Amino acid sequence: RINPDRLWDSLMQMAQVGPGIAGGNNRQTLTDGDGEGRHLFKKWCDEAGLSMGVDKMGNMFARREGTDPSLPPVYVGSHLDTQPTGGKYDGVLGVLGGLEVVRTLNDLGIKTRHPIVVSNWTNEEGTRFAPAMLASGVFAGIHELDWAYDRVDAAGKRFGDELERIGWKGDEEVGNRPMKAFFELHIEQGPILEDEGIDIGVVTHGQGLWWLEVTLTGNAAHTGSTPMPKRRNAGLGLARVTELVHEVAMDYQPEAVGAIGHIEVYPNSRNVIPGEVVFTIDIRSPNADVLDEMRARIEHGIANICDALDISFDIEPVGHFEPVTFDEGCVTAIRNAADRLGYSHRNIVSGAGHDACWINRVAPTAMVMCPCVDGLSHNEAEEISKEWAAAGADVLFHAVVETAEI
Amino acid sequence: RINPDRLWDSLMQMAQVGPGIAGGNNRQTLTDGDGEGRHLFKKWCDEAGLSMGVDKMGNMFARREGTDPSLPPVYVGSHLDTQPTGGKYDGVLGVLGGLEVVRTLNDLGIKTRHPIVVSNWTNEEGTRFAPAMLASGVFAGIHELDWAYDRVDAAGKRFGDELERIGWKGDEEVGNRPMKAFFELHIEQGPILEDEGIDIGVVTHGQGLWWLEVTLTGNAAHTGSTPMPKRRNAGLGLARVTELVHEVAMDYQPEAVGAIGHIEVYPNSRNVIPGEVVFTIDIRSPNADVLDEMRARIEHGIANICDALDISFDIEPVGHFEPVTFDEGCVTAIRNAADRLGYSHRNIVSGAGHDACWINRVAPTAMVMCPCVDGLSHNEAEEISKEWAAAGADVLFHAVVETAEI
Ligand SMILES: NC(=O)NCCC(=O)O
Ligand SMILES: NC(=O)NCCC(=O)O
Repeated sequence: RINPDRLWDSLMQMAQVGPGIAGGNNRQTLTDGDGEGRHLFKKWCDEAGLSMGVDKMGNMFARREGTDPSLPPVYVGSHLDTQPTGGKYDGVLGVLGGLEVVRTLNDLGIKTRHPIVVSNWTNEEGTRFAPAMLASGVFAGIHELDWAYDRVDAAGKRFGDELERIGWKGDEEVGNRPMKAFFELHIEQGPILEDEGIDIGVVTHGQGLWWLEVTLTGNAAHTGSTPMPKRRNAGLGLARVTELVHEVAMDYQPEAVGAIGHIEVYPNSRNVIPGEVVFTIDIRSPNADVLDEMRARIEHGIANICDALDISFDIEPVGHFEPVTFDEGCVTAIRNAADRLGYSHRNIVSGAGHDACWINRVAPTAMVMCPCVDGLSHNEAEEISKEWAAAGADVLFHAVVETAEI
Repeated sequence: RINPDRLWDSLMQMAQVGPGIAGGNNRQTLTDGDGEGRHLFKKWCDEAGLSMGVDKMGNMFARREGTDPSLPPVYVGSHLDTQPTGGKYDGVLGVLGGLEVVRTLNDLGIKTRHPIVVSNWTNEEGTRFAPAMLASGVFAGIHELDWAYDRVDAAGKRFGDELERIGWKGDEEVGNRPMKAFFELHIEQGPILEDEGIDIGVVTHGQGLWWLEVTLTGNAAHTGSTPMPKRRNAGLGLARVTELVHEVAMDYQPEAVGAIGHIEVYPNSRNVIPGEVVFTIDIRSPNADVLDEMRARIEHGIANICDALDISFDIEPVGHFEPVTFDEGCVTAIRNAADRLGYSHRNIVSGAGHDACWINRVAPTAMVMCPCVDGLSHNEAEEISKEWAAAGADVLFHAVVETAEI
């Protein structure tokens, strides 16, 4: 069993870096806080006797040698970046849970045949630079390196420049790493495990996603002196599209979700009818057909809405992944570990995207989930108990060690 | 008659200060551009032999002596500040039209019995600091000086500090100025005059307004892993309130308008359901009863919307004026001037708020309007013709000179 206090202590120390305003974190990718968090993680890896590799996307790989260095390593990890008003556990638990696996092996003096590598994937959250899971996506061959470097944030800063600025652009080619398997521990970010009082989610599938960035263009005009029939109100378009996305998601739920989280209004003045609105639709389903149907209905609906309001539109996909089926062998390793340790468990579909979803394309992959309070995540109030974290890390430990072979 | 080329030339020179990005202006109140525009106006006033007074709100008063200095002056003016993506004429035409009146009197060597004062009122637009018409409101005794100083912009900067920073906080007490009358020339900012091919709008009334700043508070949560029935989506609340405001305005139009121009979403991340949304509702009517009914229906509707979505709300009025009836004597002076000069004219209700609406509380006041292309304003593409501007300034000249008595 892992050391729950040590794991919790590290989680709380990492939460000191890039603090939020309400008890959580704002350690967005490639900010100074992200750089500082990486240094802290590296210091802990050094202390645990691991050797650090950093690739050109800033992905960090901390390696514990196996007894047979010719064998491909077992990878374990997640991400250290957070939402702008994010929690202390989303991603962090998976990285520090991986570190705890290694620390426990060190405590017990156990050597594995396969090396074990603890990884921190760059820009999982996708808030500052879309899409999410950017660096694991480059690693898995989904995105080109140069395309990733050219992503810009809201202030117009390039991903590649910001990675260099914080000093974490490595020399290693991205993706040139054989892997026996990849395991990711993550909080559920939904309410199922807590509601059912279950310790462990064995993640068998992940939802697919589309992020559609929509620009509606009407005509900025005076709110007071422009007659109602003369208006071309892009803000009213936003309202109708918001309602449409909600309706479509409601039609397919529980096999679908949908919302608009990011909105920019121009010129955003109290007495100007919005002339342009840019926003991102987020729709998801574990069922590829449902996801396609939702997208088609929404695009069709946007055309109708804009027609009625005499405004024009542009739709650009800025994020996408297909529904994921995780590797049966890895999933079984997790289920067996939970059984062996006596934790209650159930199969679960991940509602969120994870680095594991991309790594699953290039290596046998699976995920362990632990509950979080009220299913709340992407909120500074995100919370878990030390016991939940420990159960998740215990299962991770057993699955990783079994796969890395003693 | 005034000098159309000189007026146009001054308009074009002022438009060089604080240029926009699409041919218009971004010379928002108390920015460096505003300071620069004031210096240019003062230079022109000096050249025209006027003496400048500046009060504690930064209102500028350029005085041409009358033959009887004991008589109260006739005031003429508007504002030099613009929207963030504003036009070249909104406000500026009224200030430089006033200057053109004085320049023409100088050309003709005409002395008036009453002094004439050309005024530039601070922060008419209300975008950077709500409410609109802030400094004419303090002048008319509607707002307290200290309250006005404490208004803050989106970056948290105080009005009082910014006024001092740009160097235009005067020593004069605000409002201590006897006035015989006040005349304001302004573009219509609506389509009526152009549609009907009429040269001059004789403004008899102004619409009343409410600005209601609404905060909707739901719960920020993950867009992917939060089940639809568990959501408390403040963004969906915004959508429904936007539709409600539109519906209510449509029910009362043409005697009402309504829209939401200013929206802030928190945390504004693609994969976070909005936890909080802050926006400002702008509703207007020339009929006080209609305005009250609209407000009541909207506040009632917001309560219902929030109830259905399990979100909470707060509504704070951040701007208000009652419908205005302008002074019959001043209105008649304008109508007579248009008749005398042979311009076509009609009575019109101002859809926008103007400094004249507040000054009307403390002095006999009226407004002249000239057409603008497509009724478009609060847009960099705002346009008028030199002939329209000249007709407006001619009528202004005759009304002012008649009131100031030769
Ligand atoms: N786990 C997580 O929050 N990932 C961010 C990407 C997503 O929006 O699903
Ligand atoms: N004329 C004008 O645009 N004034 C701004 C105040 C308002 O919103 O009516």
